[in-house]
Amino acid sequence: MAKPKKTPRPKAQTPKGFRDYFGAEVSERAEMLQRIAGVYHRYGFEALESSAVETVEALGKFLPDVDRPNEGVFAWQDEDDSWMALRYDLTAPLARVYAQHRNALPTPYRRFAMGPVWRNEKPGPGRYRQFYQCDADTVGAANVAADAEICAMLSDTLEAVGIPRGDYVVRVNNRKVLNGVLETMGLDDASQREAVLRTIDKFDKVGEGGVRDLLGKGRLDASGAYIDGVGLSDAQADPVVAFLTSKGATASATLANLRDAIGGSSIGAEGVNELETIATLLEAGGYDAARIDIDPSVVRGLGYYTGPVFEAELTFEILDEKGRKRQFGSVSGGGRYDDLVKRFTGQEVPATGVSIGVDRLLAALREKGRIASQEVGPVVVTVMDRDRMADYQAMVADLRNAGVRAEVYLGNPKNFGNQLKYADKRNAPVAVIEGGDEKARGIVQIKDLVLGAKIAQSATLEEWKERPSQFEVPRDQLVSKVREILDAQ
Amino acid sequence: MAKPKKTPRPKAQTPKGFRDYFGAEVSERAEMLQRIAGVYHRYGFEALESSAVETVEALGKFLPDVDRPNEGVFAWQDEDDSWMALRYDLTAPLARVYAQHRNALPTPYRRFAMGPVWRNEKPGPGRYRQFYQCDADTVGAANVAADAEICAMLSDTLEAVGIPRGDYVVRVNNRKVLNGVLETMGLDDASQREAVLRTIDKFDKVGEGGVRDLLGKGRLDASGAYIDGVGLSDAQADPVVAFLTSKGATASATLANLRDAIGGSSIGAEGVNELETIATLLEAGGYDAARIDIDPSVVRGLGYYTGPVFEAELTFEILDEKGRKRQFGSVSGGGRYDDLVKRFTGQEVPATGVSIGVDRLLAALREKGRIASQEVGPVVVTVMDRDRMADYQAMVADLRNAGVRAEVYLGNPKNFGNQLKYADKRNAPVAVIEGGDEKARGIVQIKDLVLGAKIAQSATLEEWKERPSQFEVPRDQLVSKVREILDAQ
Repeated sequence: MAKPKKTPRPKAQTPKGFRDYFGAEVSERAEMLQRIAGVYHRYGFEALESSAVETVEALGKFLPDVDRPNEGVFAWQDEDDSWMALRYDLTAPLARVYAQHRNALPTPYRRFAMGPVWRNEKPGPGRYRQFYQCDADTVGAANVAADAEICAMLSDTLEAVGIPRGDYVVRVNNRKVLNGVLETMGLDDASQREAVLRTIDKFDKVGEGGVRDLLGKGRLDASGAYIDGVGLSDAQADPVVAFLTSKGATASATLANLRDAIGGSSIGAEGVNELETIATLLEAGGYDAARIDIDPSVVRGLGYYTGPVFEAELTFEILDEKGRKRQFGSVSGGGRYDDLVKRFTGQEVPATGVSIGVDRLLAALREKGRIASQEVGPVVVTVMDRDRMADYQAMVADLRNAGVRAEVYLGNPKNFGNQLKYADKRNAPVAVIEGGDEKARGIVQIKDLVLGAKIAQSATLEEWKERPSQFEVPRDQLVSKVREILDAQ
Repeated sequence: MAKPKKTPRPKAQTPKGFRDYFGAEVSERAEMLQRIAGVYHRYGFEALESSAVETVEALGKFLPDVDRPNEGVFAWQDEDDSWMALRYDLTAPLARVYAQHRNALPTPYRRFAMGPVWRNEKPGPGRYRQFYQCDADTVGAANVAADAEICAMLSDTLEAVGIPRGDYVVRVNNRKVLNGVLETMGLDDASQREAVLRTIDKFDKVGEGGVRDLLGKGRLDASGAYIDGVGLSDAQADPVVAFLTSKGATASATLANLRDAIGGSSIGAEGVNELETIATLLEAGGYDAARIDIDPSVVRGLGYYTGPVFEAELTFEILDEKGRKRQFGSVSGGGRYDDLVKRFTGQEVPATGVSIGVDRLLAALREKGRIASQEVGPVVVTVMDRDRMADYQAMVADLRNAGVRAEVYLGNPKNFGNQLKYADKRNAPVAVIEGGDEKARGIVQIKDLVLGAKIAQSATLEEWKERPSQFEVPRDQLVSKVREILDAQ
């Protein structure tokens, strides 16, 4: 008989560009999202969890073909040969859900969604092919009161998760104002308008001078390559630069500057009026310019959104990878887009919304010390005598019933050193020990592992004597003594 | 120039077998999972969120081929032609994660995981191709103390989410005991043992008589088809039936019955000893037989698990789809399986765990009235005068700052009837109205919509007069009056 072929062992690896999240990474994110959901809910937004899988037809943006089905999305064919794909964001599913359920849903429909999305892209350092998004959108409200509300909610959300007032600002701009500027310039050529938009998008990076060069003849970029300009004259570029730099000391000063920049354009006037309304509404809600500010230098999203555009920036400084101080930067962006549902129904439905960068906001909270760098582990009850497991289980039951996170050592108890190593790996604050001798005397040993580690690191003999890190207490005082130690740590 | 072809509009539909979850459906599940996570965490279990996508190689069970890549799982090829798939459960990813990270993880490793899994199966009523699982497993602990702990945790979890003591029981059995029975019977033929296992699996449905028939000559099933039996004699079938019906009035009586059933089998004795240890440990932890019970009639999973097997059943009665009373039934199951990581490393690693049926447990909580059938909506501030949106925004800001869920009507305010219809669709408890007249007098109108609905349904004119459902209050008493009404509802 032929020997059966040995199949090689499978590799224990996540697919390329995917990762796993452990312990505190999971619970910290869950807690942050729960706080965000609390604010959204208070604002009347309803949770929506759409299916992770969509038909490619409904998803729209990246239509796969058979030769290369994975352009941008992870896609495959169902048994009936129709294409399905993992969602790449939470907006495309919202469009599908709203079109599908519009008769059952209230209008306007405020909804929030949180969950993973998938991108079939080349992974890089810190760039994964699965990551979390957290969105809130209002569908069916044309009034810019909906945009103002989103900005207010964003401000409340940042404070609710632990970004103090003064450490963030929500900046608001409006695409219609830019359209007004372009109209006034007489820039009717669509490709030139596109080129101007692409240039403006670089304002963050290249600044006023760079934008001026790029609107004109072009410039050398950092790598030494020459970037062609749009070819406008200096005079033609002026209104665009005026728009980008029109931020004044107050909202009314900014609005006055914008009115100058748009000249006689009616779409521009509409945009400035919208910004004025937003400013008035936010002031009435108690949001001052230190929290939410009209700022035409916000350029991200101007090419995508059709009306108000917003961005939340964290203004405190961190050190970048090269040790230089810089502002933490953007953690959220959004705006108004009015063609959400049209693909499905032919009807234009106004919508506005915001997306929070979950990983970046988590990183900011770590930066601000709002999230502990390492979670405290459970109390570990060690096993001195394997036949008395019931005694140890009773101890952990007592601790857990008192709300203390606790576990009994479940590995091979033969080597006690391994048990303490385990407690260390678990980041346990306390270990409990009860050998036969202790049992006979009705006591347990409690080891303060946090204090023990401190003493081992730095304390002199005197300190050690004064504050022992191990205590002997009657068994019936186990819970109260453990609690006392945990409270003191 | 040829007219561009009109592409047909995409259908706004979830893919076949998928669905969306709205509002309370999402938050109720999130809240339940959060409570479960709280108990698991207290027991020292660590959260794990593995990637939703695995290599097919690591997933193992359903290896796709190119002709039919979607057998059981949703699978596709990555750019490098390697196969990837959506996870079909949370156990296969645990095996991969443990094998991949075993040097960094503590041993034993207690972990819990919650999240969607995907099955490429034919959908049916209530059967979706994406659903939630919620698992807890201990990897690397051979001691049955780990199994006892899982049972205790399951009991605590059910009570924590709102299943009262007395309405559930966790039943424990052991595959090794059954192996002992089969050994004692001299049933060495592997295919016959398999057939006996398959038969036992039907014990829930066909009962003792049915199992006897199926172990012997066979029987007519409900549809009238004849099901062949295993072909054992009545005497041969006796030990199997004795095993299944060995539950006594106490754990010790059950254990004594089991010792009889296994005869001289050493594997059987090992199994009975394990059950005895589990019973002792649970008693020490304060879990009596009304909560966790040794019960050899638990057959689900006996074919899969290698040691202790557990199942949580809800014992209260509900009416089934035909209006007949029946017990709610199983909401969770688990057991010990010792070949988890072997596929990857060649090393046998003991593991035990439990999985909670998220949707079934949610249904049970609804059945017990622990989850409201309809969530109360937000307070709706109506818009009587579209130019005074700032006033209305200030009202919702006041309400929200006081922790009251509130929203302003953001649709077209022209038709006031539509605003009240919207409030109704939102299930709003209260509507706030402030027209020009009220504004001038410094007051607002507050409408108690819950009371209003009651009055509209049933009240006589007298009652209506006594308890008006609409109040006039000074603007600065808006928040306190709304709170008063909400508290009374």
